[in-house]
Amino acid sequence: MAEESHTHEQAAEIADARTRTASTIRPTVPALEAMLFQAFPILDHGFVRVIDYMGDDAAIVQAARVSYGRGTKRVQEDAGLIRYLMRHRHSTPFEMCEIKFHVKLPIFVARQWIRHRTANVNEISARYSILDKEFYIPSRENLAAQAVINRQGRGDVLEGEEAAEVLDLLRGDAERTYANYAHMLNEGDAADPNRRGLARELARMNLTLNTYTQWYWKTNLHNLFHFLSLRADAHAQYEIRVYADEMLTMTEAWVPIAAAAFRDYRLGAVTLSAQMVAVVKRMLAGEAVTQETSGLNRREWVEFAAQFSV
Amino acid sequence: MAEESHTHEQAAEIADARTRTASTIRPTVPALEAMLFQAFPILDHGFVRVIDYMGDDAAIVQAARVSYGRGTKRVQEDAGLIRYLMRHRHSTPFEMCEIKFHVKLPIFVARQWIRHRTANVNEISARYSILDKEFYIPSRENLAAQAVINRQGRGDVLEGEEAAEVLDLLRGDAERTYANYAHMLNEGDAADPNRRGLARELARMNLTLNTYTQWYWKTNLHNLFHFLSLRADAHAQYEIRVYADEMLTMTEAWVPIAAAAFRDYRLGAVTLSAQMVAVVKRMLAGEAVTQETSGLNRREWVEFAAQFSV
Amino acid sequence: MAEESHTHEQAAEIADARTRTASTIRPTVPALEAMLFQAFPILDHGFVRVIDYMGDDAAIVQAARVSYGRGTKRVQEDAGLIRYLMRHRHSTPFEMCEIKFHVKLPIFVARQWIRHRTANVNEISARYSILDKEFYIPSRENLAAQAVINRQGRGDVLEGEEAAEVLDLLRGDAERTYANYAHMLNEGDAADPNRRGLARELARMNLTLNTYTQWYWKTNLHNLFHFLSLRADAHAQYEIRVYADEMLTMTEAWVPIAAAAFRDYRLGAVTLSAQMVAVVKRMLAGEAVTQETSGLNRREWVEFAAQFSV
Amino acid sequence: MAEESHTHEQAAEIADARTRTASTIRPTVPALEAMLFQAFPILDHGFVRVIDYMGDDAAIVQAARVSYGRGTKRVQEDAGLIRYLMRHRHSTPFEMCEIKFHVKLPIFVARQWIRHRTANVNEISARYSILDKEFYIPSRENLAAQAVINRQGRGDVLEGEEAAEVLDLLRGDAERTYANYAHMLNEGDAADPNRRGLARELARMNLTLNTYTQWYWKTNLHNLFHFLSLRADAHAQYEIRVYADEMLTMTEAWVPIAAAAFRDYRLGAVTLSAQMVAVVKRMLAGEAVTQETSGLNRREWVEFAAQFSV
Repeated sequence: MAEESHTHEQAAEIADARTRTASTIRPTVPALEAMLFQAFPILDHGFVRVIDYMGDDAAIVQAARVSYGRGTKRVQEDAGLIRYLMRHRHSTPFEMCEIKFHVKLPIFVARQWIRHRTANVNEISARYSILDKEFYIPSRENLAAQAVINRQGRGDVLEGEEAAEVLDLLRGDAERTYANYAHMLNEGDAADPNRRGLARELARMNLTLNTYTQWYWKTNLHNLFHFLSLRADAHAQYEIRVYADEMLTMTEAWVPIAAAAFRDYRLGAVTLSAQMVAVVKRMLAGEAVTQETSGLNRREWVEFAAQFSV
Repeated sequence: MAEESHTHEQAAEIADARTRTASTIRPTVPALEAMLFQAFPILDHGFVRVIDYMGDDAAIVQAARVSYGRGTKRVQEDAGLIRYLMRHRHSTPFEMCEIKFHVKLPIFVARQWIRHRTANVNEISARYSILDKEFYIPSRENLAAQAVINRQGRGDVLEGEEAAEVLDLLRGDAERTYANYAHMLNEGDAADPNRRGLARELARMNLTLNTYTQWYWKTNLHNLFHFLSLRADAHAQYEIRVYADEMLTMTEAWVPIAAAAFRDYRLGAVTLSAQMVAVVKRMLAGEAVTQETSGLNRREWVEFAAQFSV
Repeated sequence: MAEESHTHEQAAEIADARTRTASTIRPTVPALEAMLFQAFPILDHGFVRVIDYMGDDAAIVQAARVSYGRGTKRVQEDAGLIRYLMRHRHSTPFEMCEIKFHVKLPIFVARQWIRHRTANVNEISARYSILDKEFYIPSRENLAAQAVINRQGRGDVLEGEEAAEVLDLLRGDAERTYANYAHMLNEGDAADPNRRGLARELARMNLTLNTYTQWYWKTNLHNLFHFLSLRADAHAQYEIRVYADEMLTMTEAWVPIAAAAFRDYRLGAVTLSAQMVAVVKRMLAGEAVTQETSGLNRREWVEFAAQFSV
Repeated sequence: MAEESHTHEQAAEIADARTRTASTIRPTVPALEAMLFQAFPILDHGFVRVIDYMGDDAAIVQAARVSYGRGTKRVQEDAGLIRYLMRHRHSTPFEMCEIKFHVKLPIFVARQWIRHRTANVNEISARYSILDKEFYIPSRENLAAQAVINRQGRGDVLEGEEAAEVLDLLRGDAERTYANYAHMLNEGDAADPNRRGLARELARMNLTLNTYTQWYWKTNLHNLFHFLSLRADAHAQYEIRVYADEMLTMTEAWVPIAAAAFRDYRLGAVTLSAQMVAVVKRMLAGEAVTQETSGLNRREWVEFAAQFSV
């Protein structure tokens, strides 16, 4: 899919940038350098690529110790410190690593993503530029029905005629609104000299929310982990989760020790309420606790029971 | 236009909220209380209304002095301090006042607005709710052509057939994409029992960017002034400026002294570069300076000359 | 102790402010109004008092629903929503409530506190003002020895001669450095006309870190809960925890439903790592797990065992 | 002075770190690499050194254009864009560059510095570590008297006996309070086995505010410029300005084009209020304006007249 997400000219620019090596005394991570600048395809026309990074696992240790040199002791000891910091939510040393991504994504995904306010963002402006004719059409296996019990969730995949009709409608509407956008703009070689053309900042309002946009997005490792904990999670919408999953893979190449600690203490962790702690204690003492005797409401009990298979 | 921006039921809720008075010893501003909760119409279906506020002009003074009581001396003296703080960019006392708005606005405006990351935001979620059938269609006098010299700007207003065609296209596309959105959702009384209905979080991607959304938006006075300095400015897009203008009026009711200082030292102020300062000095000394002898580039000179009518 | 933390003149200013009632249609919380402005004494000369607030429990619900009116349904239903939001870490509705404190605290406590960067702060400036002669001297029961096993912690309380000597040294050094500070400043009625007096911004460097300072500190409810989760915790230093404890009491008066949810899902909650979840599952299935078979390191096992009394 | 600000062992760690070169395809700035890690001495025992950086002048351009490659066109064109962005306060592209410093500084300076809340900070903790016996004693030429007219400012330098006495008092109090700090801690080889030693988190309160602390401080270029605009300014206290001045020099090595634009449009710029703009216009039209006829208050007129030598 990579060839669809950016043009040959853009691929050449990326390839060219990858040839320009320099010598540095900064912390450098070969595993991340190997993937630097390259566009990893996401959805039908999107991608995510790492543009730059600052720091590595050792930089977390160095900051926690306010060291003069690179701050590493034995690898074993460093890993222990990083895991301790993650476990006890000492967040500031993780803020000392920074990463910059270039992301191409549908506008409705961008609108979810931007709610994370702690990053630096430069998005292409449709006041200034004309957006490309690219929009997200879900693949058939992602064409989910509305969940019946959970108003925010997805149910089973649509099938047969209903699926075909939905895909036709999405594609048809995106094509038509984009064509009218281009027509109203009236720019370029095919422009009609008798029409003035609508201002770009107005014409854009005719585009649908699955149109692709792009941005540079830069954040520190602590905030990245927070983003990933919400968006690489099973409750996140599929269309943003696929970006988060790819970014988590990149993060594992960059800071493998911190990323492993993140998986253990955050992504795979479970928080028990005060009431749930009491229930677990009673159960471990041999008592057979039911929802009725637990003090949890039905919803909490269901979550709890599913978690511990009780 | 107010009756178009919200329903009779909503108007009744607002009217009801306005009847519930309470006694408080907090700083209270009658001029703002008079407009509290009320929806001031903006564009064709939008509005802005103040939901709550904390502090007043005296609270700025109180914080700057870290006072025990209300901190006011004579009104004259307080105004002098507020103007001094604004002039010298002592921003923290202005952060001690807070305001909360409820805004209804087109999605493409919301996307500009959200780039101000320092506010608290709760937006209605189209993962969870079905958006109303309301979209922004510019009035004829706001149907501007693309500016020829400034890629971000607007030129003259479109006229005649071109204007009529643009309005038809915008309205037609918004109607059609919304109808297909509703059809794909397949919810409500008219739902077809043989179709499962597309998940809301997916169906929303078919909506155009002029669809209205709503949010609660809360910020402190310092950040509000920063927002207003950019968005109540002549360079801002008309569709966001009309919101900012109304919010500036509300701010003047709330903190009249600070708002006046903001107009004098920020909104109406001009920043001269080091080179421009040198030019002004030479001019005041009687020298006839031209672009060639000014050291400014052409673009800066044009901006400078327009400012001082030289 | 209240009479020691502020002067009679300041008490009179506070009492006066409490008499000025006004009518408002904003959300108002009588239980918090009852304590508004009053200085609650902390440590030997410190205090915390609420200066202003915005919102209440219903305002959280109102923002989550982006409502037109006050947004409340039945109290039971509102509480359920607030608890759901807290449990699932939907933080933005809690950001819609704001509170402003006036705090008097030792400088070394202020230095810990300020690391929470998400609040608005106005501190008295020792560049501008002369600090009062007030410094924190621990009470005998808080004169803890250095913990042997935990480098950050406290051990048993010092006793006898050692305690007496420490108190003498602390008091003596604070008295002497303050006297020299005042002497170097050479201001006021007793000033020596033959000395010019050292600049305030320099003289302050002679003060010890237990000197009291004051600030206005304003934050939203979400960030306040984060602060309280770290500082009203048993691992926090006693001298900051006493402030957090008092602020938690104030928060319970302000937003009782949200505060209860905070206690259940945050303050009293326990986060299990992925490995700990696996251990609990095995235990609930009847297996006798030891540290050796648990996959946890010794330190984690100790924390885990203490938590669940296993 | 460099040899006083850190030990031979620390110098060796720094020298060792400077030998570890790696190959990278990230943007790299040789002029900044040349000074990387090295401690530039500030005041009597302080320093500032650059630990890491992300981006360069071209990265600003690349982000502003949301480019695929390195984004540079001709150097001339890039400089024009950077200057345009700075002039029109388009701040987000500057946020795409990041820098990390290690700073050693007196606590009273650190307390001013930390009010810039937008940076990431890791400070050595005196709960955990024992602070070194190092404190700031001003040099004779920086021993300023209190300004008479400006309560925040400095007057002439103290001389003769008064200067000698001040230096004696500062040195004597710092020596004594540190000695008592060490005595109360009762740690190390000379510890008295009959005393338990006061907890570090308590003992630290006996230190004076001129004691040196250290931190890692990381920020983006936009926020760095904001910091420098306030702290490399003539109104800043000398003891923080010397840090800002050195950091500005480092910034000029790092992003020379952006730093030059910062000097022209921010550091050397002058903001005229609406009233001042009107005065300048009248003056340029040949009118002889006085304070009385200007509409400016006395204080504003003095500032204005000094700026333009009128």
